[in-house]
Amino acid sequence: MTDSQQESTVGRRTLSRRHLLLGGAAAGVGAAVAVGVDLVQRSGGETGLPAPEFYPTGNDTEPFYGTHQSGVMTSPQAHVTLIAYDLLPGTSREGVERMLRLLTDDAAKLTLGSAALADTEPELAVVPARLTVTVGFGPELVKRVNPAALPEWLTPLPAFNRDSLADEWSGGDLLIQVGSDDPLTVSHTVRMLSKDLRAFATRRWAQSGFRRALSSESPGTTMRNLFGQVDGTVNPAADTEDFDTVVWQGDGAGWMAGGTSFVLRRIAMNLDTWDKLDRSGREQAMGRNLKNGAPLTGTKEHDEPDFEAKTSLGFPVISDISHVRRARSENTHERIFRRGYNYDEAIGDGHDSNAGLLFISFQANPTTQFVPLQKRLDELDLMNEWITHIGSVVVAIPPGCTEGGFIGETLFR
Amino acid sequence: MTDSQQESTVGRRTLSRRHLLLGGAAAGVGAAVAVGVDLVQRSGGETGLPAPEFYPTGNDTEPFYGTHQSGVMTSPQAHVTLIAYDLLPGTSREGVERMLRLLTDDAAKLTLGSAALADTEPELAVVPARLTVTVGFGPELVKRVNPAALPEWLTPLPAFNRDSLADEWSGGDLLIQVGSDDPLTVSHTVRMLSKDLRAFATRRWAQSGFRRALSSESPGTTMRNLFGQVDGTVNPAADTEDFDTVVWQGDGAGWMAGGTSFVLRRIAMNLDTWDKLDRSGREQAMGRNLKNGAPLTGTKEHDEPDFEAKTSLGFPVISDISHVRRARSENTHERIFRRGYNYDEAIGDGHDSNAGLLFISFQANPTTQFVPLQKRLDELDLMNEWITHIGSVVVAIPPGCTEGGFIGETLFR
Repeated sequence: MTDSQQESTVGRRTLSRRHLLLGGAAAGVGAAVAVGVDLVQRSGGETGLPAPEFYPTGNDTEPFYGTHQSGVMTSPQAHVTLIAYDLLPGTSREGVERMLRLLTDDAAKLTLGSAALADTEPELAVVPARLTVTVGFGPELVKRVNPAALPEWLTPLPAFNRDSLADEWSGGDLLIQVGSDDPLTVSHTVRMLSKDLRAFATRRWAQSGFRRALSSESPGTTMRNLFGQVDGTVNPAADTEDFDTVVWQGDGAGWMAGGTSFVLRRIAMNLDTWDKLDRSGREQAMGRNLKNGAPLTGTKEHDEPDFEAKTSLGFPVISDISHVRRARSENTHERIFRRGYNYDEAIGDGHDSNAGLLFISFQANPTTQFVPLQKRLDELDLMNEWITHIGSVVVAIPPGCTEGGFIGETLFR
Repeated sequence: MTDSQQESTVGRRTLSRRHLLLGGAAAGVGAAVAVGVDLVQRSGGETGLPAPEFYPTGNDTEPFYGTHQSGVMTSPQAHVTLIAYDLLPGTSREGVERMLRLLTDDAAKLTLGSAALADTEPELAVVPARLTVTVGFGPELVKRVNPAALPEWLTPLPAFNRDSLADEWSGGDLLIQVGSDDPLTVSHTVRMLSKDLRAFATRRWAQSGFRRALSSESPGTTMRNLFGQVDGTVNPAADTEDFDTVVWQGDGAGWMAGGTSFVLRRIAMNLDTWDKLDRSGREQAMGRNLKNGAPLTGTKEHDEPDFEAKTSLGFPVISDISHVRRARSENTHERIFRRGYNYDEAIGDGHDSNAGLLFISFQANPTTQFVPLQKRLDELDLMNEWITHIGSVVVAIPPGCTEGGFIGETLFR
């Protein structure tokens, strides 16, 4: 056996984890190598330990230009910040165009790991870590540019009975979703884009969320929310015809062809009362088990729930008012693509949690796809005892653009 | 060339990053494998894409038991939450012991990736991602247990002229530092430990911080703060005699032998005014360049600054009132070990930043090591124009314990 055969075997089977991660696979290949090597040479640092060989993924990128905006189909990054702006009264159609060009240019640069045009901290831009910037339009922005182009569905969601919405988490003329596996990258990107917007708009709100770190588990693992539930099992698969149908607006949608709609519901989850419920009660409320998210009639996460199955006493195994049952529609059109995040904010004394879910969904039409679903859940869902919708946002996500163009350009035609 | 030679060459030079990370190095070895395989089998998920082979590091652990507590010498994780508690008036010496035993047991379990004793969301405990829990004592806790044992240095720092301290970021009888590379793990751990403390203490404040994600860059890379500066270059190297001298209390320290002190200064950084300063002005203020943190008299981060070097006009290259010059003491005892984090909080309208640094340092004695250093900086430091200390905390970090013992047990002897 030659040395390189030996290495191959070792590399694939018996190296220690540390060696495997830091050594065996190190100083790899492609565009990442240059950075890897550069980082390796920066030995020392705070700990004074020599930097081991390493294969960082911080310079992995997601495309910015394309038919669709990134940050929708993109495998969810670990961190997200959503920011909403209100246009200044004086921001005209021309102003909106200037703003969107600026935003597009800087978003494209930052996505590649390059400094923004007037980047005040260019050294913070070099680690994109799959950065995506997704831009959405509220009704007011569309009206300023092209009132005739306002989609019927681009309007606040109807009031649901159980809503307890706060202005500070709702609405906005312009939405920016910044996602990255690196929290410092999100922070820097938000700051750079915020500065671009200063002359055109004021910040209305900002909301941040997280999932497991990229390094923590296998991509494709469905996220867990802070109730410990597997959250997001029923979702169209990315890059399939099914996904296209559920999410993207078709050619007949005019300026929105290739776009979609974004719904954000800030859902406060009462961890304190949830804690008082036993495990069986929790699983009944959801209709799925906590271990792996399988429906109570199945064993694996993606098993189809059997709503006809009965217990020995003749009761449904999955309760008719469980979340999984109430969320399901016979109408296959009433489906959405979920891409949510957890939030957990610092809290004052006397409270034990200020946490919940940034429920985010993308769907071609929120009125016909999201609203009926939410209406059913609002009317009846065992989970309602522990959750409250406290924020609501609908924006249009225009299609992507090509280099030289800008996000939203089709609205100006 | 045989197939395996081919693979070896490919694996080391030309595989795409994705293949290398997700395929070539996959399904590795050791304890992590079981989890890796388990995760691989959980295909599907939100995206519907089959989960690629992957080698997650989410179940990497740091030791809990030992001579010293973890979270000091531990290579800094990506995320930290610090929480301070005030003991309830009725929490006696016996109550403190019960509290610390509970805290120790749950921290030890969670560190290993096991559920806490009364874990309400055990599924969130399975990804430690190098979780550490570090426990510190304020003066009041020591007094309740053993007033004679109060170290002279365990007292609020003297008031510095430029301080603008807020109660909401200062003080506390008990401090818990929770660090992990995974934000969901931090959130879950904080919640579990908070519940342990309910009967004994009330929460005084909580502060969260971040660095680059574990996956972003090579371990050992010195962090950057939100001014874009390399922050923490001058630091004793972990696990050296030098580190022992600077950080750990020696055998003569009684119950604190093997312990250290923790100083937290919440430093607001005015990103808006900093942005108005040009690059040269920024580098002059710091005395280091922004590119790689090298002193203005050097080329590499760890080059020794030459404070005697003069420009052609006869001025010092590194200003006498630059941060790097003012932080330096002739007295080698006046040194600390820094382990800080960035913070960046959601902000209201009309402000562009609410961000800064959770300056954290460990040193055997804060009075003789930290205070003189901070006094010099408080008196004169070009950086002072853009920073304000708004919170201040000193706690004693007792030594580690062995299995069956509890953190702080030496205080009860």
